[in-house]
Amino acid sequence: MIKRPESSAMDALLGREIPVLDHGFICVVDYMGNDDAVVQAARVSYGRGTKSASDDRALIRYLMRNRHTTPFEMAEIKLHVRLPIFVARQWIRHRMASVNEYSARYSVLDREFYVPEGDALGAQSTENRQGRGDAFDVTEAQLVANIFRSDAQRAYDHYLELLNQDEDGNILSNTRVGVARELARINLPLSFYTQWYWKVDLHNLLGFLALRAHPHAQREIRVYAEEILKIVSAWVPLTYEAFIDYRRDSFELSRGALDVVRRMLRGESVSPSDFELTPREWRELMERLGVDGSESVGAKS
Amino acid sequence: MIKRPESSAMDALLGREIPVLDHGFICVVDYMGNDDAVVQAARVSYGRGTKSASDDRALIRYLMRNRHTTPFEMAEIKLHVRLPIFVARQWIRHRMASVNEYSARYSVLDREFYVPEGDALGAQSTENRQGRGDAFDVTEAQLVANIFRSDAQRAYDHYLELLNQDEDGNILSNTRVGVARELARINLPLSFYTQWYWKVDLHNLLGFLALRAHPHAQREIRVYAEEILKIVSAWVPLTYEAFIDYRRDSFELSRGALDVVRRMLRGESVSPSDFELTPREWRELMERLGVDGSESVGAKS
Amino acid sequence: MIKRPESSAMDALLGREIPVLDHGFICVVDYMGNDDAVVQAARVSYGRGTKSASDDRALIRYLMRNRHTTPFEMAEIKLHVRLPIFVARQWIRHRMASVNEYSARYSVLDREFYVPEGDALGAQSTENRQGRGDAFDVTEAQLVANIFRSDAQRAYDHYLELLNQDEDGNILSNTRVGVARELARINLPLSFYTQWYWKVDLHNLLGFLALRAHPHAQREIRVYAEEILKIVSAWVPLTYEAFIDYRRDSFELSRGALDVVRRMLRGESVSPSDFELTPREWRELMERLGVDGSESVGAKS
Amino acid sequence: MIKRPESSAMDALLGREIPVLDHGFICVVDYMGNDDAVVQAARVSYGRGTKSASDDRALIRYLMRNRHTTPFEMAEIKLHVRLPIFVARQWIRHRMASVNEYSARYSVLDREFYVPEGDALGAQSTENRQGRGDAFDVTEAQLVANIFRSDAQRAYDHYLELLNQDEDGNILSNTRVGVARELARINLPLSFYTQWYWKVDLHNLLGFLALRAHPHAQREIRVYAEEILKIVSAWVPLTYEAFIDYRRDSFELSRGALDVVRRMLRGESVSPSDFELTPREWRELMERLGVDGSESVGAKS
Repeated sequence: MIKRPESSAMDALLGREIPVLDHGFICVVDYMGNDDAVVQAARVSYGRGTKSASDDRALIRYLMRNRHTTPFEMAEIKLHVRLPIFVARQWIRHRMASVNEYSARYSVLDREFYVPEGDALGAQSTENRQGRGDAFDVTEAQLVANIFRSDAQRAYDHYLELLNQDEDGNILSNTRVGVARELARINLPLSFYTQWYWKVDLHNLLGFLALRAHPHAQREIRVYAEEILKIVSAWVPLTYEAFIDYRRDSFELSRGALDVVRRMLRGESVSPSDFELTPREWRELMERLGVDGSESVGAKS
Repeated sequence: MIKRPESSAMDALLGREIPVLDHGFICVVDYMGNDDAVVQAARVSYGRGTKSASDDRALIRYLMRNRHTTPFEMAEIKLHVRLPIFVARQWIRHRMASVNEYSARYSVLDREFYVPEGDALGAQSTENRQGRGDAFDVTEAQLVANIFRSDAQRAYDHYLELLNQDEDGNILSNTRVGVARELARINLPLSFYTQWYWKVDLHNLLGFLALRAHPHAQREIRVYAEEILKIVSAWVPLTYEAFIDYRRDSFELSRGALDVVRRMLRGESVSPSDFELTPREWRELMERLGVDGSESVGAKS
Repeated sequence: MIKRPESSAMDALLGREIPVLDHGFICVVDYMGNDDAVVQAARVSYGRGTKSASDDRALIRYLMRNRHTTPFEMAEIKLHVRLPIFVARQWIRHRMASVNEYSARYSVLDREFYVPEGDALGAQSTENRQGRGDAFDVTEAQLVANIFRSDAQRAYDHYLELLNQDEDGNILSNTRVGVARELARINLPLSFYTQWYWKVDLHNLLGFLALRAHPHAQREIRVYAEEILKIVSAWVPLTYEAFIDYRRDSFELSRGALDVVRRMLRGESVSPSDFELTPREWRELMERLGVDGSESVGAKS
Repeated sequence: MIKRPESSAMDALLGREIPVLDHGFICVVDYMGNDDAVVQAARVSYGRGTKSASDDRALIRYLMRNRHTTPFEMAEIKLHVRLPIFVARQWIRHRMASVNEYSARYSVLDREFYVPEGDALGAQSTENRQGRGDAFDVTEAQLVANIFRSDAQRAYDHYLELLNQDEDGNILSNTRVGVARELARINLPLSFYTQWYWKVDLHNLLGFLALRAHPHAQREIRVYAEEILKIVSAWVPLTYEAFIDYRRDSFELSRGALDVVRRMLRGESVSPSDFELTPREWRELMERLGVDGSESVGAKS
């Protein structure tokens, strides 16, 4: 009898909660397909054309390189994730996925919230408007963590008071009624944890990872993305490798940057003022090319 | 060790080509989840709220009735389908799905085309602008089928001639070159068969079935939809039953129709002229209510 | 010269902030198409078939009634909305829309938060697990509002302290650095306001309204939906009317409910125990039919 | 009074049919927004952060370069297109768009079909499995065009015969009935023209153009894409320029290719065998770098 395509590495992960942040986790609930599903779908497109064809690894690399994305939609994964609400707000922007989230209209949230500590507690970056810079020293970090923690605790105490119930769900006072759950929750800060089932195809998962495992992503969502990357490497090793080579660690040369490189390779001297690249583009280009481009880059003499 | 949720009825279907039309088929390639996946996703939303909760069947019926659609996105199916191009053109309009189709740019199409015969060969309906009416008599039907068949055969002969190859892929003439496959194919009629992998979640599959298993759908796509309905009933029997009761066999009363029914139930006499229903709406309403509404519908006296 | 289709009612709304809740608003930024766009798209489908055709209003009603949804995708609207984060979290679940939200990674949020007062301050409903029941008396309501308000104020004070800046953006202390904006914000409760541009087509907008202007929706998102409904009635009056008649105020009879109605119309006595309807379904059905169905519903004698 | 954002270049295009292929056209029916809409949406994300900010052009280039795609969803266009069915079949694969197509179930198709002539009539490429190679000589080309033309004419003659009507819609024979339109049409080849309204946002339009104005796209859809590119350059000139520089004319260096370039820039000798690039990747890389890389590429000596 024919069986569903499977992945023993994924089967070993099923139902295991991989810890992330202080109270979060990722857990593989189910999956469909593997690298073979990508290959199978690509081959139906090429039909007889692949009778002679190249091996699976080469085919997957070809698809990734040429952004033939549809075959990667043919594998699917479902995760159970516990994550802070501010992370959930970034995550949900990836629209091509299915989500069922714990509803604080129906149920009471737990006293679980995220407190950034240690390296995670960065100062505002002065170079990057959206990022964080150096970590705090220990004393300062404790003061800061205490603010987060005490505000979250007080907010949760008030949440229960508004609901007119204690931690175990017992009514606090018989002489008054609780506020509706859907209202009481709005007192809780964005650091509180929620949870959801998240189902997505491999193509859209890679899109998520390209953005969220990227250095520009906020650290707290990045740690989730990095754990998912490990899951992907276990699940679809050929796709994972191609993703690293052609997407995560690739570098796109713009029309202008390509011109710079061509002239450098001809041994010409190039200088930022000759090209329509912003200073930031120029700096990034030289960094990635492994060249000291602070000034003009001279002909090799 | 935890295993993936499974469905033994679906496992029995894996890899079996279910014939549809004269040369088409549907084949279940893979699936993820079952009725439990729908329930699981719904329950995370309700959290502790369902500790006491109602049974799975009641929950699924509740979800279907109230159009809480997201839990139905949590199950997924992948089919391999061979179907005529004119059917594929309707099918592809369902955008929330993943598709990899056989490419006639890369490969040569087979000599396989659909010829409507017997009951399938209907005259243009005089009542329904988009449908077909009575079947043809046998002689007439053969004449018509012959037109379809001979044009398709000639087109395919010319297709091979344009490609400069015979049925087995051998070159016909060494003194000339073939036309590009991507061009030669445009000579083929819409009756020719193509094939694809089609992957869709259960919610979007039900949306497809609601439209394509509907009496207004073109007969040729409807026969595919009806086979898929059987697959759904094997895969997710509770969801299937709820779909039949709350979607396929339901009847939506408009604001006006609801008013008609209320007045009829109060024993009042109603007549089409009292309501802003079109003649067609009135007729449909009376039919579904099991009432002879050709004239005014009198008070029960 | 041909001009773009326009709506003078919408032109009059452009750029006007319609207030919602205590600090929110909705503002029409742009729109494309109107009722004519729906009709135009439907007519291309029917081609010559509509030469004789029925008028626009009848066509739009026909489309709405038969859930021919694609022509409604042909009109588009863009709104600027200021809304509490907990409302934004529900809103964003409507995936078929485009969103650009104010980023608290780049910029500092204002001291603006929602405090439920008066009628909005409901107790947990005892009938509806997700809703709220009676409003509070005045004294109790003030106590509750004070909790929301003082926690939000304190959280915002700490937010500024964490950022090491005052309300006007001046640095508080030169001897220490601020926490990164992307972290400081996680201290703020879900009652704080955010804002975004939201662009959606008319079909998906109606889907949003069907759910969010519904009595089951949380009051705070419903007031936004109700304002948008008014905008829709100004923009596409024919579509609006059809939406009200065939969607908002319609009532879907399940297979079982249809059977109940048919038997009632034949004058038979029906009782809940004869049908597979849940008590809730039975109650809803009788309410909508305007029948007292607490017991069996007798034959009119 | 505030007016909708407009583009005078687009206003001048409204309603004008731009001819494409032998019987096709593209016509701008409506549009919403322009480059400013992209900027406006990006700025709400950055909030106060852009008070000082850089100019619009730099912002748009920044967005394009960093694949911040959501602001490009904020402009919308609607086209009326007449196109051969085989082109429509490729076009429809772009799912994030709205379509209303002429229905041959409701109406009769015109006698209009595409015949490739002149340069368009290519032989199968021997290098590229999906493409076409050299054009045919004149005599051969006429023979080929005649096959396409005569098969299409005969198929259309039979289409009318099946419908039992002449070109003007008159009934041919009173003694028999016509086949249903939805069936008769399946006799027509893929070269026949259909038409539709197509509405898409700017982001998804650029995705369409990146694929369909690409040299690998089939020539017949490419000519449509190239006309749309001209429309885009009139509509959103800043976005167009950024698209050309960062997308159409960019070149993505894979992890391996980046390594090759770095070593070449350090003056090292590189040879294909040192890297995990396929021969095709190596060839493409050297071509784009303007280097003769048939053998190893030597250190500049």
